[in-house]
Amino acid sequence: MKQVIVVNEALLLPRGKLAAQVAHAAVDALTCAPAKIQQAWFAQGMPKIVLKAESEAELLQLETLARKAGLPVALIQDAGHTVVKAGTITCLGIGPANAEAIDAITGQLKLLK
Amino acid sequence: MKQVIVVNEALLLPRGKLAAQVAHAAVDALTCAPAKIQQAWFAQGMPKIVLKAESEAELLQLETLARKAGLPVALIQDAGHTVVKAGTITCLGIGPANAEAIDAITGQLKLLK
Repeated sequence: MKQVIVVNEALLLPRGKLAAQVAHAAVDALTCAPAKIQQAWFAQGMPKIVLKAESEAELLQLETLARKAGLPVALIQDAGHTVVKAGTITCLGIGPANAEAIDAITGQLKLLK
Repeated sequence: MKQVIVVNEALLLPRGKLAAQVAHAAVDALTCAPAKIQQAWFAQGMPKIVLKAESEAELLQLETLARKAGLPVALIQDAGHTVVKAGTITCLGIGPANAEAIDAITGQLKLLK
């Protein structure tokens, strides 16, 4: 079990803004998962990985694939009060779900360091 | 209603690491909140603020105050596989809870930008 959050790194969001958006994706995607999956993920220490994509288009493609695979998905758009334009897609949360099912979609992405 | 995550900025964590730790705090603190509070926070769009503290000691003080106030609290220690020493306290999640109750504890802290 794991959860992955993919960041739109084209935006180069500042650290605090990025962290808030990733947290938003993590919570939102979690609420889309069945209770049994949530519990299993909690029991494993809630493993969570932050990856990077190069564009909004790439995030939308990943979202489509994840939805087709039946995984919990949350696409995060910023309200745009501060750093970015309203409606900007900042990140995508996938899971918690089976790690192999997620890797089939995000396995080629690099870790955000 | 809101949730606050306070980051140990003495560590100057890299962006990806920071985002993962903040997401961890957000989910963990959420699970400590009563279901009714969780629902009310969801209904309001899950407002979430990332603030900064200057040291681990400051995070521990804030944790004590938040626990005394009966707020949902999650203190996050890193497993230490990569960037920091195992057991390092990276951040503190408080809430979701009444915004005024949280502000009484974190109101003097600055936004992490």
